[in-house]
Amino acid sequence: MFQPPTFTRGSIGSPAEATVITTVLTRGPISRVDIARMTGLSQAAVTKAARPFIDAGYIEELPNRERTAGAGRPASPLAFRADREFFVGIKITSDELIGVVTDLRAQILHSRHRTLGSHVFDHVAAQIVDLVGELLGHDPAYRERTHCMGVALSGDVDRASGTVRYSPFIGWKDVELAAHLTRATGLITTLENDVKALTVAEQWFGEGVDTATFALVTVGAGIGCGLVVGGQVVGGAYGVAGEIGHVPVADGGPPCHCGGRGCVEAIASTEAIVAASRRAAGRENLTMDDAVALARGGHEGVREVFSRAGHAIGLGLAAMVNLVGPERVVVSGEGVANYDLFEEQIRQTFVAQAFAAAAKCPLSIRPLPFEAWARGAAAVAVQTLFTL
Amino acid sequence: MFQPPTFTRGSIGSPAEATVITTVLTRGPISRVDIARMTGLSQAAVTKAARPFIDAGYIEELPNRERTAGAGRPASPLAFRADREFFVGIKITSDELIGVVTDLRAQILHSRHRTLGSHVFDHVAAQIVDLVGELLGHDPAYRERTHCMGVALSGDVDRASGTVRYSPFIGWKDVELAAHLTRATGLITTLENDVKALTVAEQWFGEGVDTATFALVTVGAGIGCGLVVGGQVVGGAYGVAGEIGHVPVADGGPPCHCGGRGCVEAIASTEAIVAASRRAAGRENLTMDDAVALARGGHEGVREVFSRAGHAIGLGLAAMVNLVGPERVVVSGEGVANYDLFEEQIRQTFVAQAFAAAAKCPLSIRPLPFEAWARGAAAVAVQTLFTL
Repeated sequence: MFQPPTFTRGSIGSPAEATVITTVLTRGPISRVDIARMTGLSQAAVTKAARPFIDAGYIEELPNRERTAGAGRPASPLAFRADREFFVGIKITSDELIGVVTDLRAQILHSRHRTLGSHVFDHVAAQIVDLVGELLGHDPAYRERTHCMGVALSGDVDRASGTVRYSPFIGWKDVELAAHLTRATGLITTLENDVKALTVAEQWFGEGVDTATFALVTVGAGIGCGLVVGGQVVGGAYGVAGEIGHVPVADGGPPCHCGGRGCVEAIASTEAIVAASRRAAGRENLTMDDAVALARGGHEGVREVFSRAGHAIGLGLAAMVNLVGPERVVVSGEGVANYDLFEEQIRQTFVAQAFAAAAKCPLSIRPLPFEAWARGAAAVAVQTLFTL
Repeated sequence: MFQPPTFTRGSIGSPAEATVITTVLTRGPISRVDIARMTGLSQAAVTKAARPFIDAGYIEELPNRERTAGAGRPASPLAFRADREFFVGIKITSDELIGVVTDLRAQILHSRHRTLGSHVFDHVAAQIVDLVGELLGHDPAYRERTHCMGVALSGDVDRASGTVRYSPFIGWKDVELAAHLTRATGLITTLENDVKALTVAEQWFGEGVDTATFALVTVGAGIGCGLVVGGQVVGGAYGVAGEIGHVPVADGGPPCHCGGRGCVEAIASTEAIVAASRRAAGRENLTMDDAVALARGGHEGVREVFSRAGHAIGLGLAAMVNLVGPERVVVSGEGVANYDLFEEQIRQTFVAQAFAAAAKCPLSIRPLPFEAWARGAAAVAVQTLFTL
């Protein structure tokens, strides 16, 4: 069967094309009339902009379900063919790689993990190349229709040049990872900070779809935040933005690895919770799992540690919402397991400290499976393909 | 002499016209070539968009100073005729009105104050109308070439409908002030929150001109912040944004009027400083001026109050900069008088708590004369005239 040419980065020809394709992708099936209404484009412009994507098989016209509706020419809704192309997403963590294959809506179709033996560049890069081979080998359709990959890791990442500027957890500085992986895998590779990648996934395919301004907060080893304001992910003039983990909420509080004191992360990161739980339980080698078990078992001191962590997160959320005014906030963390231990305190503190009507801002507190990070990386690849 | 027709709200015909007029207004004198380069418009589009403003006398072509430059047709820079039209700006405070007449660059040409006898709407509105008459009566050119007015006050203000939604200091709720003043004065009136108005003045005519993202923080009776992200003033999905005064920085700290605890405003507002200074000095009726005099005179306890206030402001600034990542921050307050007492502490705390490269963000700490608030209101009127 004839396969029309694939879109690659740079294929988008005009702002109207970018607008139409993203509208169908994030809100379809949707009629041309509704796209025109929503975007301010004329119907003729919508029809013209949709044409190349219909020709290339990304968009299809669904049969009209409103034939009996009466007067006027019935409008066939436009729908995205999500399996027209597949994407690889890779998240690099300290001890493993998580890889996924997704469709065009960033839905995960297949996933694999791979342990990292070291943080040496050659090893990590070779493991990524291997993992990509394994992922694409799973289904001949993946190998045939995958052209783009997203890679996400924590740290200061320059998406435009595909460079890891500085990533402390892996010890890399000024590493041109994207170009290397593009050459080694044949997939056009986009690199992004992991929290920003998750934010893109939420903005395009999650709770951020209908909102101009929203925030995604991640709680775990670090505490990060992706902010979307006016439809754009906030980057920070000096490469720093969304650092909710380093909002100082407790004057004179515990010292933070950033050099400050009383930061949210110094109280509520996994490391801070484990350290405080060790002191509370008097057990030097206690783990996070132990702390969770003790708290669930009713250990007052350890319960208090989780409650203080929830309080610090609630203060950080209030600071962020009072300053930025998002329409909604997603709070997500590593694994569902311990949410019951601080969700109530997060909500209570947030409502007490949110200013006036800002308290109306809904918080969605939900788990974050490890695959979701890799999915975020794939979403960045999708976004790169369909934006100018 | 023939006066070409005046632009009024709604006269701007296209996005290109808005772009060109604001570029000449905020960066002129500037050549068409440079406008084209800066805005991405073609030179032909720039020439076409500038034409109606040249015809109406807002823009003039300056004689070319680079005649000897050699090849090519010399480019005459376009300049704004700042005195082509005048604007009234009014700031409403608890006890007085401050009114100014400005030119098109929001430069203050004339100013007057007027004491308010009460907060009853009829009284305040009548005093504004009177003050406008007095301001315009100062020079026949003002009366002839003033068509727009901006009015600013603190509180929740809906600029689009010209309504004071809720302003606690004056006790107004859902008051349609702009429509009333437009009828009563004949000037097209735009209403805006006072901190946002100051932010617009800074964005169009101050330190914000060349920055996509910046912040203006005001310190005084309240502590507020106007944020510009991606060139747009952040409004907040629930009408709340930039509330740096209600960032919780001192867990378990003093109660705040907002219902929270440890907010920046609970430590560093004028009222909080006066209350703490009274306790420190053991003088029940001590005023802000007394506190400043005591601190300057070396009173340790009162100096400590100012230092704590500066520390709280520094923490709030760090929270804001770590989250939003502005290119620069202007910190401004009521009167220059007491800045020497906490500027150093503000800077010290900010640098200690700013995350990594965010510490590079420059802080301009400078006085805010009362007339500047009224100037902000006038800047909003200018902005309204020249945006779509």
